[in-house]
Amino acid sequence: MSTGTASADRYLVVSSDTHAGPPAERYRDYLERRHLEAFDADLAAAKALVQERRAATGPDEFEAQWARLTGDGGSRASWDPAARNDELDREGVAAEVIFPDADVLGGGASAPFSAGLGSSGDLDGDLVMAGAKAHNRWLAELCRDSPERRVGVATVPILHDVEGAVAEIRRVAADGLRAIMIPTLWADKPSYNDPRYEPVWSACEELGMVVHVHSGGASRDVLPGPGMVAIYATEAWWWAARPMWCLLWSGVFDRHPGLKFVTTEDGAWWVPDIVQRMDEKWHGGHNTVKLGRAFTEHVGRPPSEYFGTNVFLGASTPSHQEIERRHEIKVGAFLWGNDFPHPEGTWPHTRKSIHESFADVPVDEARRMLGANAAAVYRFEVDRLADLVARIGPTLEEVHGAGTQV
Amino acid sequence: MSTGTASADRYLVVSSDTHAGPPAERYRDYLERRHLEAFDADLAAAKALVQERRAATGPDEFEAQWARLTGDGGSRASWDPAARNDELDREGVAAEVIFPDADVLGGGASAPFSAGLGSSGDLDGDLVMAGAKAHNRWLAELCRDSPERRVGVATVPILHDVEGAVAEIRRVAADGLRAIMIPTLWADKPSYNDPRYEPVWSACEELGMVVHVHSGGASRDVLPGPGMVAIYATEAWWWAARPMWCLLWSGVFDRHPGLKFVTTEDGAWWVPDIVQRMDEKWHGGHNTVKLGRAFTEHVGRPPSEYFGTNVFLGASTPSHQEIERRHEIKVGAFLWGNDFPHPEGTWPHTRKSIHESFADVPVDEARRMLGANAAAVYRFEVDRLADLVARIGPTLEEVHGAGTQV
Repeated sequence: MSTGTASADRYLVVSSDTHAGPPAERYRDYLERRHLEAFDADLAAAKALVQERRAATGPDEFEAQWARLTGDGGSRASWDPAARNDELDREGVAAEVIFPDADVLGGGASAPFSAGLGSSGDLDGDLVMAGAKAHNRWLAELCRDSPERRVGVATVPILHDVEGAVAEIRRVAADGLRAIMIPTLWADKPSYNDPRYEPVWSACEELGMVVHVHSGGASRDVLPGPGMVAIYATEAWWWAARPMWCLLWSGVFDRHPGLKFVTTEDGAWWVPDIVQRMDEKWHGGHNTVKLGRAFTEHVGRPPSEYFGTNVFLGASTPSHQEIERRHEIKVGAFLWGNDFPHPEGTWPHTRKSIHESFADVPVDEARRMLGANAAAVYRFEVDRLADLVARIGPTLEEVHGAGTQV
Repeated sequence: MSTGTASADRYLVVSSDTHAGPPAERYRDYLERRHLEAFDADLAAAKALVQERRAATGPDEFEAQWARLTGDGGSRASWDPAARNDELDREGVAAEVIFPDADVLGGGASAPFSAGLGSSGDLDGDLVMAGAKAHNRWLAELCRDSPERRVGVATVPILHDVEGAVAEIRRVAADGLRAIMIPTLWADKPSYNDPRYEPVWSACEELGMVVHVHSGGASRDVLPGPGMVAIYATEAWWWAARPMWCLLWSGVFDRHPGLKFVTTEDGAWWVPDIVQRMDEKWHGGHNTVKLGRAFTEHVGRPPSEYFGTNVFLGASTPSHQEIERRHEIKVGAFLWGNDFPHPEGTWPHTRKSIHESFADVPVDEARRMLGANAAAVYRFEVDRLADLVARIGPTLEEVHGAGTQV
């Protein structure tokens, strides 16, 4: 079977946003002994909570529907490499960037001690690092199966102990992982413009580790009360968007031009408006003249120019509006993802979804957004994926309709 | 001189965003005696800080320029009704909605104890209420001069003591004020969806008091460090935008259909994207189906439908982009303002700015955005302003160019 030319009529699709994790109990084998007691207590409490909720609300119509659609809701494919590859193949996805917390319906698969998407500055620093290490060890094993198609994103709590975080970054890099996720919320810890995090950025630049935040967390300043869930859903994007401009305005990308930072599953619709305003401030306008050199002091270029070189959007399941705004967002900064196996993602209808989203996008742009950008950012070896793409990649005809020119 | 027809070829211009305050010392006369010691200490500290900064940075080029342009930077017009009317007249502004903190360059005119734009849940509740009362008393006096052209916005800290806040709302209403401003930041206090604030919304609906938040405050979770000012400037709009959806999603406008809420000097560019997403959630979409009835539980109509009836934007010094988006924002929710006397506003070039912004806007839409909407929201008696408008209002020709049809 030939490579290279074999995929000229197919897309290399890289999902820049998937999730994986074993059944919760299995993290026991990856934790240090001194944390087992706390882990068992946490697990028992989590299970009791799920049972309590089920007892209160009765059978959940959404859960039943999801099970009818997917079989087990992706439970096995969350940890079993063969089952996972089967799902990726069916979806036309050649490679993936793997975040923690595959858990959807309360059955497990979340990193211990909230070390996954809920990692935050207000957690216990020792426990959250212990949970992170356990997940990262498990993740490195998963990625050793079919390494050509998996980039594992280690979760690294950098807020409590910078030195310990850098040691974990070096350890996971040696263990084959090529990316880290830092907490979305710093909470009561210093924000990401603080110079104390400099060793983290240095280590990641040196080791080629792509730095991420992933949406999910939200400030706890909106407490339970009427409308809380709706307020959370309206605001969630913001909390994951903030770290980007904390790094950018404090000059992190000027001091570390090789550093790559990705904001994942946080939409991209907000990028043009916010970055245009950042550019205006950098150039200096009427509204900000009284603030003087605040915008150029640490930042050598207009903020938009860092997009596609240092800053990227893991724009999972993009809306039509986001696809339309791709030039303002920057085609080169746009990384498609399917959020497998979460129900807000496109699984198990990814092929259909790619057709609906990209039918009218020129092939060269779609190639970049669907896979080529991610391949470059995450250093996938495209040659090693060529046979797979030739077998499972969505065809141009499938995406754009019959008669599409290559 | 005739009224009515006299202004057919002129615009009624209402600035929905101006600021006023006396020289700081003068607040002494409006404070209760028991707070004078704290006030004097605050004032001395503030003055020392200004002197220290001036000693450190030397003469400020921006301040010098601003003084050359405006004479005294608006200091006298910040408190003297005659001087204020002269400036309004020159600018073509018939009426105004007055917020605290005219102070620009550290010379005073800010409400005591940070009770103005910096009012926040983490301040001392007794002091901030004392400062608010002092400012509100002073403001009511200012508004008794030329009452037909002034609506005073009382500052009311509602976060520490709801009962006390309601008493102050009743007091200022009886004193002739028609609007209140609540703190932008609740900080460690319950957010605005909490039922404890219900008596505030009830009182404001009953008394026809328009409720405001005004931009300026920002979360203190980004501490001094590289890029802090740029991060603040990038984020400032968000902190003042949040209260709107806290009220809306918790059903405040459903329980109080007569209540009017205005987000002032916070831009309007963000409204279409955010409200469109709120509407999508209300209608129920793929991304939020697992959250069930969270979006319709307290809210009877799609969120966008509250704009122009309950929710308004005090869109000070709108950009061309905001003017272009007026239909998505809703023309009926759009209240122009000049932010007098702040240097980021349009003073002393308001007439020129109105021409530049509205030249291409149809006259009937410009009439609403420049004045008619605000006249309705704030219950200005338009007839009493007719002679003034006939004298000072910008002409259609001035705004749109020669030969404009009425």
